[in-house]
This record gives sequence, structure tokens and C-alpha cells, in this order.
Amino acid sequence: MASVTTSMLDAYPKSINLDRAKLAAVIDTINACAQACTACADACLSEDMVAELAKCARSDLDCADVCTTTSRVLSRHTGYDANVTRSMLEACATTCRACGDECARHADRHEHCRICAEACRECERACRDLLATIS
Amino acid sequence: MASVTTSMLDAYPKSINLDRAKLAAVIDTINACAQACTACADACLSEDMVAELAKCARSDLDCADVCTTTSRVLSRHTGYDANVTRSMLEACATTCRACGDECARHADRHEHCRICAEACRECERACRDLLATIS
Amino acid sequence: MASVTTSMLDAYPKSINLDRAKLAAVIDTINACAQACTACADACLSEDMVAELAKCARSDLDCADVCTTTSRVLSRHTGYDANVTRSMLEACATTCRACGDECARHADRHEHCRICAEACRECERACRDLLATIS
Amino acid sequence: MASVTTSMLDAYPKSINLDRAKLAAVIDTINACAQACTACADACLSEDMVAELAKCARSDLDCADVCTTTSRVLSRHTGYDANVTRSMLEACATTCRACGDECARHADRHEHCRICAEACRECERACRDLLATIS
Repeated sequence: MASVTTSMLDAYPKSINLDRAKLAAVIDTINACAQACTACADACLSEDMVAELAKCARSDLDCADVCTTTSRVLSRHTGYDANVTRSMLEACATTCRACGDECARHADRHEHCRICAEACRECERACRDLLATIS
Repeated sequence: MASVTTSMLDAYPKSINLDRAKLAAVIDTINACAQACTACADACLSEDMVAELAKCARSDLDCADVCTTTSRVLSRHTGYDANVTRSMLEACATTCRACGDECARHADRHEHCRICAEACRECERACRDLLATIS
Repeated sequence: MASVTTSMLDAYPKSINLDRAKLAAVIDTINACAQACTACADACLSEDMVAELAKCARSDLDCADVCTTTSRVLSRHTGYDANVTRSMLEACATTCRACGDECARHADRHEHCRICAEACRECERACRDLLATIS
Repeated sequence: MASVTTSMLDAYPKSINLDRAKLAAVIDTINACAQACTACADACLSEDMVAELAKCARSDLDCADVCTTTSRVLSRHTGYDANVTRSMLEACATTCRACGDECARHADRHEHCRICAEACRECERACRDLLATIS
């Protein structure tokens, strides 16, 4: 089933400077990463060993915020500005790299970190793929 | 395929005061509505008749922000507070009702408003359903 | 010196259904609370006794998100909808009450919780004051 | 009077890798820019000539989101990551440049665009200043 992201991009009334199918897939991947990071931050706070996960929770919170903003920027096309899109995709890839690395360190002990690390890796890849088509 | 929301709720290390499957479905519905509203606001800005859609764009922006925050509150369980959850679900249902009504007025002329109205209706229903299990 | 909130409300080209000076003061108070809560959540994560502050960090994160969205809703007037404004002010007051109570429990041990509790109290009051002029 | 940002940074229990007074000033400048952009987007939607301001409203919305996220990233210090901070400061400076340029084009006709352009210029400068101390 097509995601609402795809349906909305198809219904956009003007031209879009990026491939719509690819763009929809990237936005969905970023939204999934934002969701994973928000949940992982809270799961870290719930662990008995939260002290060892404080840095991880912080990375999650940063990554959730950066992903949410990147998704919104990508979802807007009125007066599209490649510089803004590119800089947010770079910030998003950088933040997902950092968060994925941190979560990966706890992946064998905490399932939520394992899933979140994977979501961050996929998101970083999606951002870099899209960046390659813009630059 | 299970959404990342479901996987992360399953990986949460402590108890959750709500049915996990239902909660995951509600969060996914709210996230879809946030995405629809962000895209609809931008599509409204791109229409030649934007002047007639200014109120709609405003409703979309409010609804995107309220949905994003509601989704985050629902995704956190450490120190769960039923009053906070309930008040945000009520605000989200109210905002989705307002945005759905406004979008519905333009649904026959603009496909993005038609899809967004539907997303708002579903989101309002999901919030009220979850509210009924908390109150 | 007038805040940018005041200057922007004065520059708004149409009528506003609320007292502009009062509205600007409420928005500034809400923004200050959002800032305090974001910082308090991170300070809690940095304390050696973070395990005792996990619930506090969660309240802070909810409160920061709810305040940010409430501030944005209040800053938009195109097609003003009293139901939406009222429901978000109620959610914001409820969330500030919960967060203020939680922070107050740690106020004598952690200065960041003391300041944040105060910011939450002021914000709750500001939201309820504004609500009284709408209802 | 000290802003709540300053008080909270002073109350932070561990070391911070940046000058606290400078950091507080940058965060306050970014928050003011976020507020100006949210208000400017809505003011644009309220102008009779909204069709000519659609691109400006879009820039405002991007800038408000990017500033909000940058402010949050800067407000977190647990496990500080210079790469993440740097990439968001760069994205914020780029977005403020774009939004400031767009608002400046309408500054002589719309007071809200004039004020917002100024807030964007200040914010871009503040981000670049802070970047210079990190790189």
C-alpha cells in the first residue's frame, strides 16, 4: 500500500526538483528513524543501567529532532532551495552516523538500541543517496 | 511488515500502561497525519488560488505540530502520566477535527486536501479510541 | 527592550482575537519554559544519580515538546480557531503542572530542577490566565 | 536580567565544551529567530498578496524548524559531539541566509519581513561565530 507520503507527493500541484518515488522513500525512512530515536531515548531512560546510556539517550534526542526537521524540509517544495535541502541532508546523515555508532555500542545488550542503530544506518544511507542526486 | 513503532514498543524494557498493539497503531496513524498536514500546507502554498487556502494552510501547520508532539508524548513511557497523555490526545483530536473540517471544504477541488482530510479523520478517531481506554 | 515576539505581533497585518501585549508575554513565557525543560532534561542525564531523575527527564521532554507546539499555535492567527487554541493551552497547563511538580521534588538538590520548576509554574499560570480570557 | 538559558547553563552539573556566556547568547538569538520566522510565515499567509509571499512563507517554515532543532542540539551537552553540533550550525546558517535573503526582498513592503530578515541575519552571524570557535 502506498504511504501517505507518496500520495501527497503525487497530489502536489507543481513540479518537484527531485524524483518523487525516491523522495517519498527517503522521507518515510527519515520518519521511521525519528520514531525509533524517540522511543530509544525513552527506553534508555527506563533501563536500570541508565547511567551508561545517558550519552545514547542524548544522541537519540538529537537524532529525533534533526530527522523531524529534515523530513519537514524535504516535504516542502514551494520555492525549493537546493542549499537548504543539501545542508539539512548533510546534518541528518552526520547525526544518524553519530547516533547509529552510539546505539551500535549497546546493540548486543539492548534490543531497542539494536533496532535504533539499524534505523539510523538506513537513514544515513537514504540521506547520502539523495544528496548524491542533488549535488 | 511490522512498523518500527511496533518493534520499539516490543523492545521497551518496562511495563506500559496501554495495550502495545493499539498504541503502536495510534502512533503510526498520528505520524501519517503529521506527514499529510505538512505536505498539504506546502501544496496549499503552491496553488494559484493560495489566498482561498490560507486558513487551510494554517490549520495544516497547527495540526502537523500538534500531531508531532502527541506522537512523541505517546512514545514515552518512563514515569507515565495519564493526565498529560489525556490532555494531548484531546488537543490532538480537537485539532484534527478542525483541520479535517477545513480540508474537507476544499476536497473536491484539491486532491491533497481530500487525502489530508481523510488522514485527519482517521487520526481524530484513533485519538478518541485511545482516550476511551484511558479515561 | 521589546521582544521579537512583540514586534512581530505588532506587525501582523490583520486583527488578532486576543490582547497583543498579553499574548506576546504568554508566548515569551512558554518559550522560556521550553528552553528550561530542554536544558533540564539534559542536566538530569548528566547527574551521577540519573536513575532517580529518569522520570524528571521524561517530564521535561514532554513539557519542552508541548510548550514548543503551544507557542507555535499561539503565534498563528490566520483563521484563528478558539477550540484549537483552548485545547493546546489546557494541555500546556496540564503538562507544566506535571513537570513543575516533578522538578520541585528535586529542587533542593539540583539547581536546574529548581529553575525549571519555577519556569513551569510561571508557564502554567500564563496559560491559565490566557485561557480565562478565551473561555 | 539573565535569560533562563544563561541560568540553566550555569546550573549544568558537568563541563561544557563551549564558552557558556557565548553559547547562551547564541541559543537566545536562535530562539528569537525561530519565533520571528513562525510569526512571519503566518503574517505572509494573512497578506492579501499572499501569492507573492508563498516562497517567503516556505522559507520561514524551514527556518523556524531548523532553528528550533539547532537550539535543542546546542542545549544538550551529555556526550557532546562536535560533528553533530557543527553540521547543525552550518545548516542553520545556510537556512538563515536563504530566509534572510527572501524576507529582505519584501522588507520595504512588509514590516514583518523586515524584522524577520534582521532576525535571520543576526542568527546567521551568531551561528558562524560559534562555528569559528569549534572548527
